[in-house]
Amino acid sequence: MSYTDIFIWELLGTGVLVVIGNGSVAAVVLKNSFSHGGGGDWLVIVLGWGFGVFTGASIAEPSGAHINPAVTLAVAINGGVPWGSVPFYMGGQLLGGILGAVLCWAAFKLQYDHNDDNSGTRAIFCTAPAIRSTGWNLVTEVIATFVLLLWIFTTPAVNDTLGYAGVTFVIMAIGFGLGGPTGYAINPARDLGPRIAYALLPIKGKGDPLWSYSWVPIVGPFIGAALAALLAGVLT
Amino acid sequence: MSYTDIFIWELLGTGVLVVIGNGSVAAVVLKNSFSHGGGGDWLVIVLGWGFGVFTGASIAEPSGAHINPAVTLAVAINGGVPWGSVPFYMGGQLLGGILGAVLCWAAFKLQYDHNDDNSGTRAIFCTAPAIRSTGWNLVTEVIATFVLLLWIFTTPAVNDTLGYAGVTFVIMAIGFGLGGPTGYAINPARDLGPRIAYALLPIKGKGDPLWSYSWVPIVGPFIGAALAALLAGVLT
Amino acid sequence: MSYTDIFIWELLGTGVLVVIGNGSVAAVVLKNSFSHGGGGDWLVIVLGWGFGVFTGASIAEPSGAHINPAVTLAVAINGGVPWGSVPFYMGGQLLGGILGAVLCWAAFKLQYDHNDDNSGTRAIFCTAPAIRSTGWNLVTEVIATFVLLLWIFTTPAVNDTLGYAGVTFVIMAIGFGLGGPTGYAINPARDLGPRIAYALLPIKGKGDPLWSYSWVPIVGPFIGAALAALLAGVLT
Amino acid sequence: MSYTDIFIWELLGTGVLVVIGNGSVAAVVLKNSFSHGGGGDWLVIVLGWGFGVFTGASIAEPSGAHINPAVTLAVAINGGVPWGSVPFYMGGQLLGGILGAVLCWAAFKLQYDHNDDNSGTRAIFCTAPAIRSTGWNLVTEVIATFVLLLWIFTTPAVNDTLGYAGVTFVIMAIGFGLGGPTGYAINPARDLGPRIAYALLPIKGKGDPLWSYSWVPIVGPFIGAALAALLAGVLT
Repeated sequence: MSYTDIFIWELLGTGVLVVIGNGSVAAVVLKNSFSHGGGGDWLVIVLGWGFGVFTGASIAEPSGAHINPAVTLAVAINGGVPWGSVPFYMGGQLLGGILGAVLCWAAFKLQYDHNDDNSGTRAIFCTAPAIRSTGWNLVTEVIATFVLLLWIFTTPAVNDTLGYAGVTFVIMAIGFGLGGPTGYAINPARDLGPRIAYALLPIKGKGDPLWSYSWVPIVGPFIGAALAALLAGVLT
Repeated sequence: MSYTDIFIWELLGTGVLVVIGNGSVAAVVLKNSFSHGGGGDWLVIVLGWGFGVFTGASIAEPSGAHINPAVTLAVAINGGVPWGSVPFYMGGQLLGGILGAVLCWAAFKLQYDHNDDNSGTRAIFCTAPAIRSTGWNLVTEVIATFVLLLWIFTTPAVNDTLGYAGVTFVIMAIGFGLGGPTGYAINPARDLGPRIAYALLPIKGKGDPLWSYSWVPIVGPFIGAALAALLAGVLT
Repeated sequence: MSYTDIFIWELLGTGVLVVIGNGSVAAVVLKNSFSHGGGGDWLVIVLGWGFGVFTGASIAEPSGAHINPAVTLAVAINGGVPWGSVPFYMGGQLLGGILGAVLCWAAFKLQYDHNDDNSGTRAIFCTAPAIRSTGWNLVTEVIATFVLLLWIFTTPAVNDTLGYAGVTFVIMAIGFGLGGPTGYAINPARDLGPRIAYALLPIKGKGDPLWSYSWVPIVGPFIGAALAALLAGVLT
Repeated sequence: MSYTDIFIWELLGTGVLVVIGNGSVAAVVLKNSFSHGGGGDWLVIVLGWGFGVFTGASIAEPSGAHINPAVTLAVAINGGVPWGSVPFYMGGQLLGGILGAVLCWAAFKLQYDHNDDNSGTRAIFCTAPAIRSTGWNLVTEVIATFVLLLWIFTTPAVNDTLGYAGVTFVIMAIGFGLGGPTGYAINPARDLGPRIAYALLPIKGKGDPLWSYSWVPIVGPFIGAALAALLAGVLT
């Protein structure tokens, strides 16, 4: 597969992932949405991101369905893709994250316009910890991404028949089990892309993109993914 | 397959889809229903419509399981079905949508009769935006339907083993991620059919079918589907 | 397969179905349960019954996984099992329903003992309509069971790879979409068996088993199943 | 497979199971978590544990994916693994349970530090009954584990294509249907491992590990599993 094709498929897959994922948070955060105030908000968010991974990963299958720079890094460490392809993977993922966030914003444009207070809308786009403390926030993101990659490297052939439902269930597991403290970025493109979009989009009264935190959901997932790649190299 | 058979299978599949989908909204809207006031209303609606697609699409497999005129249009654009069959597809889908809504009304007949106020019951049958603005409402429906068709055109062979669970997960993704602003019609027959039924059914104190909006959940899905068909033609 | 084996497998499968299903209602109805008051009650019930069907139907696979007299009737009408086997199917199902309800009661014994008021505990065991009216209650049960059997008769080979997850998703669809008015018995053994158990079990201050309604969730499902069998005979 | 490999894979699988499962309870119990107070708590817990089983069991496939001493006992009784391997299975599972609980604590470290009152945090780690009464608590754990093992021993080939999604659905069934009274340990390592971790971890103001109850979620699951093994031996 050409590097251009990799770029395009990863862009499409990550874009769709972010449209759905960001939208699932928007659905419970923004006031004039049918899904607002219906109860079970965390379930909507975790199931929404999970099925978003199903949709996006299915679409990005031709390039290996990474749709996550941490996955690309881990796969490259274990020799699954050439290092020369990595910038094309990550570039497509990041641009996809930006464009997906913009599309999601367009879908909810009226909700932003009629919201009482948009200062909390950053949560729709990108993560921030419930309690800030760089070290422990990193720990949470490292553990969550480690679980994802450990599963990816070791999941058995018997799960092949689940198609992309398998990884969907793992993303939901991570959301329920490890999402509470930091919002489970576990994917640098899913976090940085929409954060850039949030900084640029004309949302009236929007909040701070919180750039000071933005490196944590990049570095944490990369560390967790690399650790899983090393462990998987030993195990298999 | 004969055009008559196409008509019948699409009618059955769309009818079942609408019985389940409309009923999932009825379940949380109508007062004297066990499901009323239990919390997690949006989850009930999104999961209900999703599993409704599973059931209806499985039934309509002989005709290709379109059960949605936007799918039929996109498939016809890409040469998947002859244009001559399109009226039989869409006719079956629309009639199925009407009959499914009537059956659903019958199942909840007592709930309508004992409801304090039926003015909001249109939401059970067909969509209306949370905030009305034709252009942005169209944008939301276009994006949502584009995601559905992009997935249909590009989903890989590995998902074949999911049967109709694959498209079910995508419908749930779209519900969670893009359903909040307009109620995600993404299917002209699922919207127009029940809207016609709502206009005709003898529901005491029922509300306005909102004909002035009715073209948006028809035109939006058709545009989104056509765009996805064009993109898929380029990509594959 | 011998009639004795049919009896045993259907008893085991229906018993497990009812243990799980009754328990999912008990979980939200009985006060001293971890699941009480957590919100999303209807979701707990619908998902619980759905996964209960998965578990029970998987276990009863040797006998065809009917675990429902309405399924047995419809399959017999279409020639899938000999009429002579029908009493053994239905006998095993009914006895399984009784025993499953007793096991479920034992699992929640302490919750019954410490409940403030057990007059509403019949809802754990068997169905009753939200609004009573024999004709319309029958209509609801007929439609719901018709959808189940129509899916069973027409579901395509592509769904075979879902194993018993396919029927699980359909049961969830019916629960969300058609369960609100009557509690979706759609299975005479699942309703009558536990109703008998409820009449016999020593639950302090228990309510009326509502025998006057008990024939509706038997006759309704049988009619719906027979109609689907007839339609499927014409279609295929 | 060597006994060392069995130990390692069971440790990894059980560890991941407990990270996700404990975390799903932490998500709703601990105050400063995004998932706290969102509604649908019981759903978060049951779905979280279920998908945790999916993830952990997938990882532990090389050793047979027991990740539960009760499963190992039942499989050994029926001759599926040699008795000599049993201590390595159970040792890995128990150590995995301890380590998983420690990792989960680390992921939520800040939430523990900022919690108003940690006296109820034992519920995150291990089970205790809603109402204490040794005999009936045992009955509940016996029935719940019996259902799990009966399904494992009898689930048909048609479910093979579900991979580890099959057992996931059964765990969810048991959670919804039989989890309310005792918190459904159904797995001695999942309960004892984190209980040990809870006793050792430096959580300010933590509660009692309730050692007096700790044998019930060990003995109950072992009895239920053994009974299912015996029944399965007769049936098949």
